[in-house]
Amino acid sequence: MSLLVIGTVAFDAIETPFGKTDKIVGGSATFASLGASYFYDKIKIVAVVGDDFPQHEIEDLQKHNVNTEGLQVKQGEKSFFWSGRYHNDMNSRDTLVTELNVLEAFDPIIPDSYQDCEYLMLGNLSPQVQQTVIARLKNRPKLIVMDTMNFWMDIALDELLKTIQLVDVLTINDAEARQLSGEFSLVKAARKILTMGPKYIIIKKGEHGALLFHEDKIFSAPALPLAEVFDPTGAGDTFAGGFIGYMAKVGTINFNNMKNAIIFGSALASFCVEKFGSERLRNLSEEEIAARIQEFVGLSKFEL
Amino acid sequence: MSLLVIGTVAFDAIETPFGKTDKIVGGSATFASLGASYFYDKIKIVAVVGDDFPQHEIEDLQKHNVNTEGLQVKQGEKSFFWSGRYHNDMNSRDTLVTELNVLEAFDPIIPDSYQDCEYLMLGNLSPQVQQTVIARLKNRPKLIVMDTMNFWMDIALDELLKTIQLVDVLTINDAEARQLSGEFSLVKAARKILTMGPKYIIIKKGEHGALLFHEDKIFSAPALPLAEVFDPTGAGDTFAGGFIGYMAKVGTINFNNMKNAIIFGSALASFCVEKFGSERLRNLSEEEIAARIQEFVGLSKFEL
Repeated sequence: MSLLVIGTVAFDAIETPFGKTDKIVGGSATFASLGASYFYDKIKIVAVVGDDFPQHEIEDLQKHNVNTEGLQVKQGEKSFFWSGRYHNDMNSRDTLVTELNVLEAFDPIIPDSYQDCEYLMLGNLSPQVQQTVIARLKNRPKLIVMDTMNFWMDIALDELLKTIQLVDVLTINDAEARQLSGEFSLVKAARKILTMGPKYIIIKKGEHGALLFHEDKIFSAPALPLAEVFDPTGAGDTFAGGFIGYMAKVGTINFNNMKNAIIFGSALASFCVEKFGSERLRNLSEEEIAARIQEFVGLSKFEL
Repeated sequence: MSLLVIGTVAFDAIETPFGKTDKIVGGSATFASLGASYFYDKIKIVAVVGDDFPQHEIEDLQKHNVNTEGLQVKQGEKSFFWSGRYHNDMNSRDTLVTELNVLEAFDPIIPDSYQDCEYLMLGNLSPQVQQTVIARLKNRPKLIVMDTMNFWMDIALDELLKTIQLVDVLTINDAEARQLSGEFSLVKAARKILTMGPKYIIIKKGEHGALLFHEDKIFSAPALPLAEVFDPTGAGDTFAGGFIGYMAKVGTINFNNMKNAIIFGSALASFCVEKFGSERLRNLSEEEIAARIQEFVGLSKFEL
């Protein structure tokens, strides 16, 4: 029994109104596995880096209970690199550089020892690669969660739709839900997307929280109102990782557990944005997480 | 003991993607008193209309427990008229016509029989008029709730700031909170506005719900995810009216009661947007409201 995370392990260079970084470690699989690691300890990763990727960073993932047997290191090649600049409102950003490098020909090889995975997190990545991973698993996982973004809707919609058909939970943001469905109302958008394959859809609304849709049920999760968002990079991946890590921990797939998983994922994401990149996710204590969860409880609770 | 509502009683002509209306009855005091009427039965209104305002509409307010002694009817003058067209997203609108008419020289006269008011709803109106009403009350009400909008920030900021100093609760939307405070983060915006006088601030976020701030406490209320928003006109006024109506009913001013008041106000507002103008607020049953409140409870409840 394990949780398989696929996605990118990469370098980011980030500019925000608060400062800028050199190349730091980022990537959807990095954030998602770090997020999941706070709730679950049998995480296996499939991703690809170049020989420029520091060994100590791989060891740091291992210290977070992440099995890196499926992390391919391509000699003579460079890791995926993304650079972006956030605007003052921190809600929008410009991409400055995208160098695919090792990602261009990424073949997601699943080590035999990974075939026991019951939970699969398809982190943001080309839908074709996400699909290949599903096809290469001998047994269909108990729960497949897929994250994606508008980029794939723009350039690979057909492949994206094929992949969406295969998953249990789709996580996208509100603008992406509107784009994918052609509906402005998020309720209508979710209803339409639920006919495309997933049994659950989570619409991430950033500072406004998240909505979970399943059959005719809806759950509205708050976001923690923050005085400062230092760097939003990776918050969505961290959310998804925390979400599936919590589901793997509880082990039973139902709406109530997913509600809690959204709260746990949101709590992890609220830490992520406090520092650059994945820095804040490196050494969280159980006490810090428990206190943050209590903030979420206090924030939205009312008793009539 | 009573609830005094001031604001506009007016005509609106509305265009939405779903259709358009001729002149129908609207105005902040209309929506707010109808909203409050579902929780509280001693409502007194101060507003002004022209002799074009139908008597049966005044009688309909009376049927909703609204005392109209303070509703001035100006012979030979016309009622305030606003006309607007909503865009396809229903989140933005263009004002087509604004005719102030009777509002131009509105002197808010408080009948003696209104001097017992313990709750005061300052519906959206010129801050000068809002201030005058406070000054004319012999005893300061137990709770003063003020609604306003960006229009007054643009043209009467000084008067607005003087009025804000005098109230207990300010309700504004997120864009207005940002404009008033000069802060993008809603947490920072709220903190700054709390230094301007009000002890509570409610930031209305439309389809994303509302945030209540008081001292260092925050409550995040969900909005009901709706498949259709037929006409958003008056939703904010209805929310404010439902809020203060509920507070008047429970009678004790504290954070917990305000949380519930926000849920009740949100429920009323969610009805308001289902039909044009105030139509849906005219004949709600207790059962409908109770069922809607249960939807809010189900929407945001989680048990860890």
